[in-house]
Amino acid sequence: MKKYSIGVDYGTNSVRAVVVDITDGTIVGDCVFHYPSGDAGILVDSRDPNLARQNPADYIQGVLVSVKKAVAAAKRIDKDFLPENVVGLGVDTTGSTPIPVDANGTALALHSEFQENPAAYAWLWKDHTSTSEAQEITEWAKKRPENYVAKCGGTYSSEWYWAKILHCVRTAPKVAAAAASWVELDDFIPGYLTGNAAPDRIPRSICSAGHKALYHEQWGGLPSVEALAELDPRLCRYRYDTKAVPMDHLAGTLLPEIAKKMGLPAGIPIAVGGMDCHLGAIGCGIKPGTLVKAMGTSTCDIMVSPLSEPMTDIPGLCGIVPESVMPGMYGLEAGQSAVGDIFNWFVKYLTPAEFTRGNAHENLTQAASALAPGASGLLALDWNNGNRTVLVDQNLTGLLLGQTIHTTAPEVFRALVEATAFGALTIINRFEEYGVKVKEVVNCGGIAEKNDFVMQIYADVCNRPMKVSRCPQTCALGAAIAGAVVGKGCKNFPTAIQKMTGVKEKIYRPRPAAVKIYARLYTLYTQLHDAFGNTGKILNLNHVMKELLEIRSQTRSL
Amino acid sequence: MKKYSIGVDYGTNSVRAVVVDITDGTIVGDCVFHYPSGDAGILVDSRDPNLARQNPADYIQGVLVSVKKAVAAAKRIDKDFLPENVVGLGVDTTGSTPIPVDANGTALALHSEFQENPAAYAWLWKDHTSTSEAQEITEWAKKRPENYVAKCGGTYSSEWYWAKILHCVRTAPKVAAAAASWVELDDFIPGYLTGNAAPDRIPRSICSAGHKALYHEQWGGLPSVEALAELDPRLCRYRYDTKAVPMDHLAGTLLPEIAKKMGLPAGIPIAVGGMDCHLGAIGCGIKPGTLVKAMGTSTCDIMVSPLSEPMTDIPGLCGIVPESVMPGMYGLEAGQSAVGDIFNWFVKYLTPAEFTRGNAHENLTQAASALAPGASGLLALDWNNGNRTVLVDQNLTGLLLGQTIHTTAPEVFRALVEATAFGALTIINRFEEYGVKVKEVVNCGGIAEKNDFVMQIYADVCNRPMKVSRCPQTCALGAAIAGAVVGKGCKNFPTAIQKMTGVKEKIYRPRPAAVKIYARLYTLYTQLHDAFGNTGKILNLNHVMKELLEIRSQTRSL
Repeated sequence: MKKYSIGVDYGTNSVRAVVVDITDGTIVGDCVFHYPSGDAGILVDSRDPNLARQNPADYIQGVLVSVKKAVAAAKRIDKDFLPENVVGLGVDTTGSTPIPVDANGTALALHSEFQENPAAYAWLWKDHTSTSEAQEITEWAKKRPENYVAKCGGTYSSEWYWAKILHCVRTAPKVAAAAASWVELDDFIPGYLTGNAAPDRIPRSICSAGHKALYHEQWGGLPSVEALAELDPRLCRYRYDTKAVPMDHLAGTLLPEIAKKMGLPAGIPIAVGGMDCHLGAIGCGIKPGTLVKAMGTSTCDIMVSPLSEPMTDIPGLCGIVPESVMPGMYGLEAGQSAVGDIFNWFVKYLTPAEFTRGNAHENLTQAASALAPGASGLLALDWNNGNRTVLVDQNLTGLLLGQTIHTTAPEVFRALVEATAFGALTIINRFEEYGVKVKEVVNCGGIAEKNDFVMQIYADVCNRPMKVSRCPQTCALGAAIAGAVVGKGCKNFPTAIQKMTGVKEKIYRPRPAAVKIYARLYTLYTQLHDAFGNTGKILNLNHVMKELLEIRSQTRSL
Repeated sequence: MKKYSIGVDYGTNSVRAVVVDITDGTIVGDCVFHYPSGDAGILVDSRDPNLARQNPADYIQGVLVSVKKAVAAAKRIDKDFLPENVVGLGVDTTGSTPIPVDANGTALALHSEFQENPAAYAWLWKDHTSTSEAQEITEWAKKRPENYVAKCGGTYSSEWYWAKILHCVRTAPKVAAAAASWVELDDFIPGYLTGNAAPDRIPRSICSAGHKALYHEQWGGLPSVEALAELDPRLCRYRYDTKAVPMDHLAGTLLPEIAKKMGLPAGIPIAVGGMDCHLGAIGCGIKPGTLVKAMGTSTCDIMVSPLSEPMTDIPGLCGIVPESVMPGMYGLEAGQSAVGDIFNWFVKYLTPAEFTRGNAHENLTQAASALAPGASGLLALDWNNGNRTVLVDQNLTGLLLGQTIHTTAPEVFRALVEATAFGALTIINRFEEYGVKVKEVVNCGGIAEKNDFVMQIYADVCNRPMKVSRCPQTCALGAAIAGAVVGKGCKNFPTAIQKMTGVKEKIYRPRPAAVKIYARLYTLYTQLHDAFGNTGKILNLNHVMKELLEIRSQTRSL
């Protein structure tokens, strides 16, 4: 009798539910639900481009509809499937996406009195209204004896929990006063499904708490009341004492009235939630030594390292949180602020007509593929949207160097792809410099799935084979794995990962000639990186253009 | 009875003749002759993109046809015009464009035995086959006690006389052996017109000799035989003893058989020739304190300074040559390796379809005009074709900095225009740092004629009014002025300039708000300039992107 698990994956514009066969990770049912509110699910404000909120009602409708339809699909597709054989359900979400809730755990936005107030809605991860509060928190944290930002790269982000709450306290005091607590989306959904939604009962995931809310056992969980009071006394009431837990913990069981709407039996075990990239890393088969790269508009880079091994703070890493990915392991998060977004920018804004017949992306990719490494003489920095790792600085911008009066669009496009690969290598090097050995790289996400050209450049630049996850829905698969673990369909995460995940046969392998040229270009990249980053370093750059021309002429004469 | 003068202007693709009324500089007859040989007049070699030669036969046919037709046009247009009233003729040409000639001064290319040999043709200014020879000459010159390159910016160029001859000696020894001498195009034409073509008789212009052939009175004219022998003993026979003279000197008088073909009387005085930008400066009304900028695909920037005033070597200037522009004055030459060429590059290679309906240049210009200084956050270097002044380094390339994932094509286009303006200001500053005060800027050339947008940015960046020459054919007018002076239609250059030249009424004046922002951007430009130029300087650049973002947000909030 086959067993199944359900994974629910909350993205920025939609929620996806999958039904997974836990013997091998096959997806047997799948449904995507697009959030009906706002602009593709995002509530925006024409007066403030930084504002990005979501409607909690979309989240609730989304889980009911998507799970119901995924279950129905599983029935059609897999003759063996029975709802009774679903052993558990897991959830992953965007984050930090905090939601103000009342004493019952109901989102304030669902109260009619707050319906018109955007502050009462979910503060989507990419809401950037809290920039000044984030700076304030960074300064405060660094002055504190605990150095609260030591585990999240040394800089607090405007995208994160406390910055958003502090901004709400100051700009929407009525919402703040009505909020009994602020709940991350990855806790909100399990709370809703299990009825354990009230702030004093709701399980908190170490994944979002540790990476986004400054939660760490070293200082007893969240920052102390006394410390929060220094920022703003009104923050103190949101400090919870709950112990945040990893995703092998049970959040509760599926409420009968919800189960009915989904076409499932009541009582199914629901796992504590986690953030999308972390469960995506699970879905990619993460283990110590494996770097999982989720490659899309930006990247999220995840590693794990056993708690039993020594771990130092790694400067510039977005977070080092015990058990944030899986029990018994540190979870380490890094990332690039823009990857696909840079390619999309170039395609949209700087691609001449001759490449826009048909698919401009494909045309540029084809032309850029035909070029040899180093032959354009170009070198770029991948900072068009700032630098998340290792500089942790959004106040950085792009750079392109080496252009002549003959430089072509495909040459620039290729230089931008190479720049993001150099950024990826910089992250790998940072892990290794601090003792976290990268033995394998597994990629997932749209670019990894579709773009041979980019993946080959990454293999050449990083001088490592680039593997791609077998399952395209790695986040939803990871959530289903959490469901399988809490539902005791699998003994633990490593066992489940071994059974349910894998990589594609096709592996992008480094080509020695390209590796050699990219090593030279990377040396120049790091010089530009250090010169223009806020590193305090002062470098001699007199040679950079000349070396690029030298590499160019050597490459062209090959 | 009105008097006239004829100016003949040899460009890269064509030759233009004008008939000018010497009372006020009005052009009363005009004809352009396109060189029939090669690719738009240029002989190229598909195996060697550096090769650019021209057919001396085109030059000869060109002067005969263009002068004849300009004279015919003058007859139609100006009732008062009579060929008998032409007092003189002057010539300007590209340079350095040396031509190997036989003992009679006939171009070797015109001998049937050399017809197939590109080395026997004219070596057009932009022929870059002699790069390694140029480097060799620079090193040699610097080791010599005379420091032969001190008057031409410290670096010898592959575009110049001796580099080309040395390359010919080594790669085409038969041509070199057959050459009795090498004659610059600006000497070749007066030699042809007057019959004073033989190497021992031909007048040599101080303009090309001084700027391109290391001629200077300080070391007795050309480099000594002993010095040339160090480079290659085969060069020695090309050293001429003739004293090079300025353009108020008579090269001779028009030969009867040529006069007949042109529809002119024999015996018209012909001025010693000069290079296009130098006579263009005359046509723009140059005087001490006036910077003349010829703005096209590249720029040539000319000033004069009285011989009676002290003059030091100015590092990075292409040349400081006594009387190269006019008698009694030092001629100072600077320039930017690419200006219009950078705009053309961007339009051709990186302009998206939405701007290419109709005229892409105009569309981009219109969109870029609507932007405020500093509002894009972008900053560029104007080195896509190297840097002629003040770095004198062709091994430099472009740089663009500050781009985000929202940067648009008009923003980049504007940043490129601004970059060339910053380059222009760097030249002005270099003049002034060495005591040559720039009291006035007069522009000529296609960009100055047509492009309000560019000219306004130059005014704002340089914080000086930008004037534009009244006559669009400044080089040809300058040549005609030389003709008027040698023909005694005018007393001397200053008198002729006063009568025959002027600026347009419309003057581009700096706008204080823009001046302020550009002053901040220029500070950053100079930091990039010094950091990436071969200056030996090591600068802290950590702040550059942040300052650009700060300027951007301040500008946007205005």
